[in-house]
Amino acid sequence: MMNKAYFYHAGCPVCVAAEQMVADAIDKQSYEIEIIHLGEQASRITEAKNIGVKSVPALVLNNQVFHINFGAALSDLG
Amino acid sequence: MMNKAYFYHAGCPVCVAAEQMVADAIDKQSYEIEIIHLGEQASRITEAKNIGVKSVPALVLNNQVFHINFGAALSDLG
Repeated sequence: MMNKAYFYHAGCPVCVAAEQMVADAIDKQSYEIEIIHLGEQASRITEAKNIGVKSVPALVLNNQVFHINFGAALSDLG
Repeated sequence: MMNKAYFYHAGCPVCVAAEQMVADAIDKQSYEIEIIHLGEQASRITEAKNIGVKSVPALVLNNQVFHINFGAALSDLG
């Protein structure tokens, strides 16, 4: 059975790198991937929040959210 | 040609979920995955730092580091 994967992003440089990673590395024989650009599809922001997406880029597999390169290290702030 | 993927983790709950994601979702026909538990293989921490790993879990594909569920949101701290 084909699993559904969602990749939420917003067109930022980190997002683009992560999208390339997802496109390259995810097993397309097991996962059908939907790419959602929240900058262009603002109507889907609520859906993303409901799934648990707190930042982009994020990969959702089987309703589990994986935030990629999430935020900044506190060590980068001080 | 087989690409090499590295997954660095430290046995934490987030790491375990991410490891499952990697094991499930990465295309094993394109990537040979090496799992490195930095808690048990402390000798490889320097290698990880040199690649650019700043937190675990992290997935490295073609020398590009993807931090997964990196850190905590500042909104979780206040």
